Amino acid sequence: MQAMGRKTCLILGGARSGKSSHGEKLARQAAGNLHYVATAEALDAEMDARIAHHKAARGAGWQTHETPLDLLACLEGLARSERPVVLVDCLTLWVTNLILRDMDIGGEGDRLAGFVADSPYPLFLVANEVGLGIVPDNALARKFRDEAGLLNQKVAAAADEVVFMAAGLPMTMKPTS
Amino acid sequence: MQAMGRKTCLILGGARSGKSSHGEKLARQAAGNLHYVATAEALDAEMDARIAHHKAARGAGWQTHETPLDLLACLEGLARSERPVVLVDCLTLWVTNLILRDMDIGGEGDRLAGFVADSPYPLFLVANEVGLGIVPDNALARKFRDEAGLLNQKVAAAADEVVFMAAGLPMTMKPTS
Amino acid sequence: MQAMGRKTCLILGGARSGKSSHGEKLARQAAGNLHYVATAEALDAEMDARIAHHKAARGAGWQTHETPLDLLACLEGLARSERPVVLVDCLTLWVTNLILRDMDIGGEGDRLAGFVADSPYPLFLVANEVGLGIVPDNALARKFRDEAGLLNQKVAAAADEVVFMAAGLPMTMKPTS
Repeated sequence: MQAMGRKTCLILGGARSGKSSHGEKLARQAAGNLHYVATAEALDAEMDARIAHHKAARGAGWQTHETPLDLLACLEGLARSERPVVLVDCLTLWVTNLILRDMDIGGEGDRLAGFVADSPYPLFLVANEVGLGIVPDNALARKFRDEAGLLNQKVAAAADEVVFMAAGLPMTMKPTS
Repeated sequence: MQAMGRKTCLILGGARSGKSSHGEKLARQAAGNLHYVATAEALDAEMDARIAHHKAARGAGWQTHETPLDLLACLEGLARSERPVVLVDCLTLWVTNLILRDMDIGGEGDRLAGFVADSPYPLFLVANEVGLGIVPDNALARKFRDEAGLLNQKVAAAADEVVFMAAGLPMTMKPTS
Repeated sequence: MQAMGRKTCLILGGARSGKSSHGEKLARQAAGNLHYVATAEALDAEMDARIAHHKAARGAGWQTHETPLDLLACLEGLARSERPVVLVDCLTLWVTNLILRDMDIGGEGDRLAGFVADSPYPLFLVANEVGLGIVPDNALARKFRDEAGLLNQKVAAAADEVVFMAAGLPMTMKPTS
């Protein structure tokens, strides 16, 4: 089943919905060497604690790549490693990092979606759904919400599978039943 | 298939979830003359830009009706046009407009639900789900959240179909599988 | 059908998504004496109004238990009543109450999940999904969001059924189809 061996999956959900754990479970089910691509930057103590929490929960067996900005170069580089299985956690922090540096989010998103559509290895991507609350007060938060949502749409269109998580449970959005 | 030709559908989702695009796609699939009922009011430059963005994305072939308040009169009037197919975008901005003028939201919502239940033409309605973030700080935002949610419930109960959008993908909520 | 008679169900959703009404409907369908376990504390006029609204909507036939903190003692006590059917509304207010008193939320959540996994009677639990908006500004709101999400995961893992509500409509998350 070659097709199964190269599947790509977007794991979408809210805060504490079990996205990362589900992504890790899916990645472990794929046969290969596990790579964890972390987009978080530990800029304060709270973020430090969240990163440490995720690392402890993940357990052994993962090679970690800290990639706050150049996600595409990292994913392309991993194609040259042996039988990689890759989990990206998460796209929404990546968007935040790009926004804070005023980088070309649309262009980067298109490049990512292009890579996902033709991934040479099993690729699992975690992203936050952030558009289901009331409209944020400030313009930067609205821009972030827009960019995160647009990126999710692009990646969802390119991925083989999309699941929506709540309370630790996945709902399959793609393929449609 | 007369029943198919008159179906009503509520398209529910967050910001940048692909609601409008999906509504436009569904409306184009229904045979008839396309009418776009816009509830947005361009009160500032940001809103101007959003409206222009939606209009460009929609493409040609739509007759636009700007209807920030009297949605019912507009929908009733369209029943007298030739083979109309109608997309309302969106109910949540309409609620906002009614709240800002202290109008009778409950009564208007009941009238809308009554129209949807017995629509003489294919009718697609876009609405935001806004209740899935934390409780807003201020009372007006909480009132808005309550009123938007109650209106969604009324329209969902009256519509033939309801879909929940995330990342550009629809999940069918009604009819239940 | 003994198994049906003891089912447990988590009803998850946003504000004004129809969670409470759906929980009441499910509880009425179970044969037994109806108990309503309210975790709300009426600390201000707005909360008073919400509680009164829910009580009026619920109608007759319910025995109400106001239990802002010691939910487990209440649930255990009800096991000694005659053929109870219990609706807890809601877990998210309970978490709020525990946080405000700096109580052991993790431990209480584990105890609750243990009870749900082995409930001696039909038990329906309403909870808010609060993690689908943008990241809150202040640390207390982020802690609340985290704790509410973690509790939802624990209870969802223990319950027989989980539904996600939007616009008054349930989507089944568990058992998976």
